Amino acid sequence: MNTPATSILETATMNGVVTLRLNRPSQFNALSEDMLQALLEQLDILQRDDSLRCVVIESAGKAFCAGHDLKEMRSQPTLSYYRYLFAKCGKVMQGLQALPVPVIAKVHGIATAAGCQLVAACDLAICTSSAKFAVSGINVGLFCSTPAVALSRNISSKRAFEMLVTARFIDAQTATDWGLVNDVVAETELNARVNRLVDDILAKSPTAIRYGKQMFYKQKQMTLADAYDFAGDTMARNMMEEDAREGIDAFLEKRPAVWKS
Amino acid sequence: MNTPATSILETATMNGVVTLRLNRPSQFNALSEDMLQALLEQLDILQRDDSLRCVVIESAGKAFCAGHDLKEMRSQPTLSYYRYLFAKCGKVMQGLQALPVPVIAKVHGIATAAGCQLVAACDLAICTSSAKFAVSGINVGLFCSTPAVALSRNISSKRAFEMLVTARFIDAQTATDWGLVNDVVAETELNARVNRLVDDILAKSPTAIRYGKQMFYKQKQMTLADAYDFAGDTMARNMMEEDAREGIDAFLEKRPAVWKS
Amino acid sequence: MNTPATSILETATMNGVVTLRLNRPSQFNALSEDMLQALLEQLDILQRDDSLRCVVIESAGKAFCAGHDLKEMRSQPTLSYYRYLFAKCGKVMQGLQALPVPVIAKVHGIATAAGCQLVAACDLAICTSSAKFAVSGINVGLFCSTPAVALSRNISSKRAFEMLVTARFIDAQTATDWGLVNDVVAETELNARVNRLVDDILAKSPTAIRYGKQMFYKQKQMTLADAYDFAGDTMARNMMEEDAREGIDAFLEKRPAVWKS
Repeated sequence: MNTPATSILETATMNGVVTLRLNRPSQFNALSEDMLQALLEQLDILQRDDSLRCVVIESAGKAFCAGHDLKEMRSQPTLSYYRYLFAKCGKVMQGLQALPVPVIAKVHGIATAAGCQLVAACDLAICTSSAKFAVSGINVGLFCSTPAVALSRNISSKRAFEMLVTARFIDAQTATDWGLVNDVVAETELNARVNRLVDDILAKSPTAIRYGKQMFYKQKQMTLADAYDFAGDTMARNMMEEDAREGIDAFLEKRPAVWKS
Repeated sequence: MNTPATSILETATMNGVVTLRLNRPSQFNALSEDMLQALLEQLDILQRDDSLRCVVIESAGKAFCAGHDLKEMRSQPTLSYYRYLFAKCGKVMQGLQALPVPVIAKVHGIATAAGCQLVAACDLAICTSSAKFAVSGINVGLFCSTPAVALSRNISSKRAFEMLVTARFIDAQTATDWGLVNDVVAETELNARVNRLVDDILAKSPTAIRYGKQMFYKQKQMTLADAYDFAGDTMARNMMEEDAREGIDAFLEKRPAVWKS
Repeated sequence: MNTPATSILETATMNGVVTLRLNRPSQFNALSEDMLQALLEQLDILQRDDSLRCVVIESAGKAFCAGHDLKEMRSQPTLSYYRYLFAKCGKVMQGLQALPVPVIAKVHGIATAAGCQLVAACDLAICTSSAKFAVSGINVGLFCSTPAVALSRNISSKRAFEMLVTARFIDAQTATDWGLVNDVVAETELNARVNRLVDDILAKSPTAIRYGKQMFYKQKQMTLADAYDFAGDTMARNMMEEDAREGIDAFLEKRPAVWKS
């Protein structure tokens, strides 16, 4: 399944952890049509991969991702093309949430426009202290509307609005303080910190993680009463799984659990 | 109405303030079926108590609440039982919001899984500096799905997701910074701090507080236009109450108000 | 369009930036029926003003705004009047969001009750270090129900609830930390800071800003899938505008953009 290192999207798999590496460093890993297509195809594969445990999205070169490929966008100036393109981008972002396992953005350098959206659309994010975030489309006359969808579901309203209308960059610490990323570390610590988070997840029951990921975003969109009904039913079904029985028995017997899933 | 000190749920009433004390310290005040039933029965009584002004939930022993009773859960391994149990728990959590007065979680020690959910489901929370919070079901193969409902309505998305998939503990200061609790104080100050918050509430018009509590969560689930319609109508009816007339007259006459409700 | 300096609501226009100045300092700029009416009329004019780029709301005297005019409210004690009054207030607050350009609250002194709501209802807010915020209606027996609508869409649930039931003041730094305002500056820096924010907005494409403002709040109320559909369509239409073509071409040619809109 590993792709050649020359692909625009490299994939590497180890122990159920799939790393997707945006690999078009000379274009700051822009989300060109090809890149979006490559991501969609990978998401489609991953969605059906029962051995999948975790996904990490990282980037080659100096930037994490600078958003859409503006040159390409200008070369096909029709409304139908733009609708197709932004719908494709939206499918990628929603596909990350639809994956049954946690998706971690591993961020260094700049993450702008749809690149910032990509960070916001992941379940978790770790960045280096030099990472910077902006939704900067407004600087080229194009309001970051689809990035706003993800951003406004991560940070508070006035902060999101300010970023969108001013294109201001926020630094890594601010992004952490505002909840856009989970943690910031020194550049030299990025691998170790992400690996630690991955290991934390790998130590858990795969079945239980899948129950949770599918439930989390779905219940957020419901009324409180519906959310409790749905989450309660999910948790009851989770309890009937072998891993929950094993996990609880191991806890009560003060021994490590051995997951079967 | 005060219960014997040997009950698993002690209740004490003073000046309209009802303290519910989880009292199964040897099991870290686990939300067993009996404890949930006792809470439901109290909520039912409190819901109809017109003299009720405020509810405080506290705990005996070293922990606030360690979540469900795992041993009990394992002893009845049927889907229908788990559905019944989590529905019961959901009723308790929603019952706290449905009470017509503020509910304060008074937290010391650990609050884990459904114990963390209990804190999240209260309107207000004060904790000691040694309090710790986690949604740790994932450690035993059981994703904290119902706790996720309350948690994700208190703190931002990535923070909630990280807590749910890693089971990490957050300390009292972090819980305050993230908005899960309102304030953190030294252990020796907990009583005084909660009493001060209770006194703040007791100094207000009971009628006005009841208008507000019922409105607050309801409007949050509405569109902006519907929320304004509903809140505007609530406020108009509140203005027709004797307490609002008295409160405003007292303010204009620069004298203390005397509530009639 | 500029109003005489003796109006309760002064308006000043420069380069498409309209400043609305609440000018009833002796009553702490209370939102009396006249003031609400004056605001509604201005909003109606501004809504149809194609040259509008940005709106700033500021206040004369020591306070930003102390909320409703309590004396006036007491003088017409009928349910139908209160319904009319709060509906009018709701129209003003929603009218700010419905404006096609960013609205900035420029806050000094106290902002209480509907005055705090006014800050929350703006898209952006800058305040001085001496500014203070409270939803203090509960002190006069009138729960701040309509302010709760705006406040609970700006800050986290437990923080909003605490402010509403205790009437506690939060200082400027706390308001910034919680996301109720975007930035806090020294009193002497307020003009410069707001002007800088305005200039940031004026440097952007007017057309693109209008696409974004209309999209931002609308998508927040949608499910994720609907939000992406709507935002994607908005962005596609934005791309067909002359400003987006010019902005992207200028970026690719490394020259400043010249907006046509």
